[in-house]
Amino acid sequence: MTTLSLTLSYTTKCSSHKDSEHKGLKPNKSSVKLNGFSSSNKAVEGGVNFSANVATSPGIASVAVEDVRGDKSRQNIPNKKQLSDPFRMGLITEGGLSYRQTVVVRSYEVGPDKTATLETILNLLQETALNHVWQSGLLGDGFGATHGMIKNDLIWVVSRMHLQVDQYPIWGEVVDIDTWVGASGKNAMRRDWLIRSRHNGHVYARATSTWVMMHRHTRRLSKMPEEVKEELCPWFIERQATVDDAAEKIIKLDDNAVYVDSDLKPKRSDLDMNHHVNNVKYVKWMLETIPDEYLETHQLSSIILEYRRECGSSDIVQSLCQPDENWTNDKEGNYMNLMNGFNLASEILEGRGLSGFLDNTPTRYTHLLQIKGEKKNEEIVRGRTTWRKKSNACINGSG
Amino acid sequence: MTTLSLTLSYTTKCSSHKDSEHKGLKPNKSSVKLNGFSSSNKAVEGGVNFSANVATSPGIASVAVEDVRGDKSRQNIPNKKQLSDPFRMGLITEGGLSYRQTVVVRSYEVGPDKTATLETILNLLQETALNHVWQSGLLGDGFGATHGMIKNDLIWVVSRMHLQVDQYPIWGEVVDIDTWVGASGKNAMRRDWLIRSRHNGHVYARATSTWVMMHRHTRRLSKMPEEVKEELCPWFIERQATVDDAAEKIIKLDDNAVYVDSDLKPKRSDLDMNHHVNNVKYVKWMLETIPDEYLETHQLSSIILEYRRECGSSDIVQSLCQPDENWTNDKEGNYMNLMNGFNLASEILEGRGLSGFLDNTPTRYTHLLQIKGEKKNEEIVRGRTTWRKKSNACINGSG
Repeated sequence: MTTLSLTLSYTTKCSSHKDSEHKGLKPNKSSVKLNGFSSSNKAVEGGVNFSANVATSPGIASVAVEDVRGDKSRQNIPNKKQLSDPFRMGLITEGGLSYRQTVVVRSYEVGPDKTATLETILNLLQETALNHVWQSGLLGDGFGATHGMIKNDLIWVVSRMHLQVDQYPIWGEVVDIDTWVGASGKNAMRRDWLIRSRHNGHVYARATSTWVMMHRHTRRLSKMPEEVKEELCPWFIERQATVDDAAEKIIKLDDNAVYVDSDLKPKRSDLDMNHHVNNVKYVKWMLETIPDEYLETHQLSSIILEYRRECGSSDIVQSLCQPDENWTNDKEGNYMNLMNGFNLASEILEGRGLSGFLDNTPTRYTHLLQIKGEKKNEEIVRGRTTWRKKSNACINGSG
Repeated sequence: MTTLSLTLSYTTKCSSHKDSEHKGLKPNKSSVKLNGFSSSNKAVEGGVNFSANVATSPGIASVAVEDVRGDKSRQNIPNKKQLSDPFRMGLITEGGLSYRQTVVVRSYEVGPDKTATLETILNLLQETALNHVWQSGLLGDGFGATHGMIKNDLIWVVSRMHLQVDQYPIWGEVVDIDTWVGASGKNAMRRDWLIRSRHNGHVYARATSTWVMMHRHTRRLSKMPEEVKEELCPWFIERQATVDDAAEKIIKLDDNAVYVDSDLKPKRSDLDMNHHVNNVKYVKWMLETIPDEYLETHQLSSIILEYRRECGSSDIVQSLCQPDENWTNDKEGNYMNLMNGFNLASEILEGRGLSGFLDNTPTRYTHLLQIKGEKKNEEIVRGRTTWRKKSNACINGSG
């Protein structure tokens, strides 16, 4: 998950931050409730903390920091705010708060239909968020943490991500990615993105995420210390890129889910700078449970991710997936639409195939990634994906 | 393999091109020998052609081309040579022939040790090669093919790649990547790259590759038509980025190899724009056979790849790997150094562990990827990798 915990950073209007009790706040004694999860010691030991993307042991983290320090001249991280960065094609915009980066979709970032993959879009969100912090002058050593956070041994962890894609950019297309941050309650931060076509100004994608702080050694969630609020607060912008649909809960799937992929094992190349499974890998595991026939004829229009726990390199992961409530397995294990008795397997076998399939397929899936434990399973992330049919050209092109 | 067949393009000195017989050359009647492989029909049907990165059926390819055509205004491919491209940070340099692109190593392009991964470097080679063609004004529809190639239904396929990495760029580092092309015999093209630190000018990596032409429908290798020579010839530069070590043959491994990974199956996300397994995936499959303990303490300093055949989405792949000739399996299947009887497993079990291991490990591996066939196996690519020990900081950081 490190991928996303790199994100991070600023704000413009500090509403109620000043009322919070923070004098002498010690991160490793604080206890913050979030999405029903507590950061108390017990909770951490029980595995319900979500230590998104950080090293598991202090030793690893400290070595990493030393490396970066030694290479500082090669990295050239600015100590103060830079209005533009010619190498990253980055600009501080919107009254000095928001960040805009111009990006060309590269040849290896597109899928078989020559449009940017979901993986590419998630990677670019991370990259622009980090470059926002980079250019702000707030970046300390490590990934996205401010100077005040480093002083307090705090790291960012993502708790929620909501991405909507109206149109996928194509190979060679130039897009502008805007990102900014805002307050989210007393102890969290919101980060938003807009991806826009440079060619016609259309908004191709929008995303909103929520971030909280965790102590890097105790792995417990922490309140936001006052000195960190003071760093971030001046960067907050209230505007949100997506419409909040938090009201609709993502249910927790169980072993009765229609699709189950078990025994997923992280490979070395799935690990990021903090030796944890990268967030983008999670999404790949989620989507790989959906049948290829569906993926070839549909494209993802929205994904919501609710993070619960990190995943380490030795964990064995299970990916569960369930089409929306009208779809289920019948007694023989066939995939059935409860509303009209449509049976996918027989429909295709009987030659009504693709067209019948297209008219009857689900448009939403619920997902769960969990770590298989000896006694109990531990949730990594819940997800919901929404899909739309591809255009004919894309469908033919992907056969 | 599509990844690499995107590469492509130009030249500066046409030595003997004019003597070649090319009048009325019909690509699908030509027969070119390359690395011992023939492009005759029989050879193709026998599976010894290497159709690097192209669609398997004319139908798929033509849809792809139509898509690109429809989206041309979003892509904005230039019709004539552009001296600079501000969005790609690309420049035509060296007398108007070579291409230089400035690139920042992104947060998701580095591995656990915060240095760019091999995958990232290979991706950037592809990207800069394609952008060279893009900026030259020679790019037709499709990936890297010139207008003359499209007229003759020809595509580029890579036959050889040699990459040497002296130092890996780190997260956030700015590098300049130079690439240029040259003649390679009568019917092939060489492409070279240099990756240089923007900070101190040091050459971090260098690469040389060889490309040949294939008819997109017959899948046979083709001579280079005169009109294509005329397009490319003016761009040729004789200088080569790596020292040629073609003399040292890469042996073909068999089932007695020390490491064997079988039943590797391409996933949807491994496929590129032409629905073929991406070249970078090949390298991942190759390296995943090497033990993690080795990869954590060593870094790749050189890789040579000799391509024989493409891999489709339904192929089942086997990855074989063998340390250099002094290393083999003993009767119990333990990994032994023939020279001094050093046994890796017992060395680690007996607590001499890492230091003993470091002093006795091999520095070279031979690789083979092959498609498991019912009657016989078919080679996809042979490889040789050379390794050096990581510095202590990196080793500690990756534990």
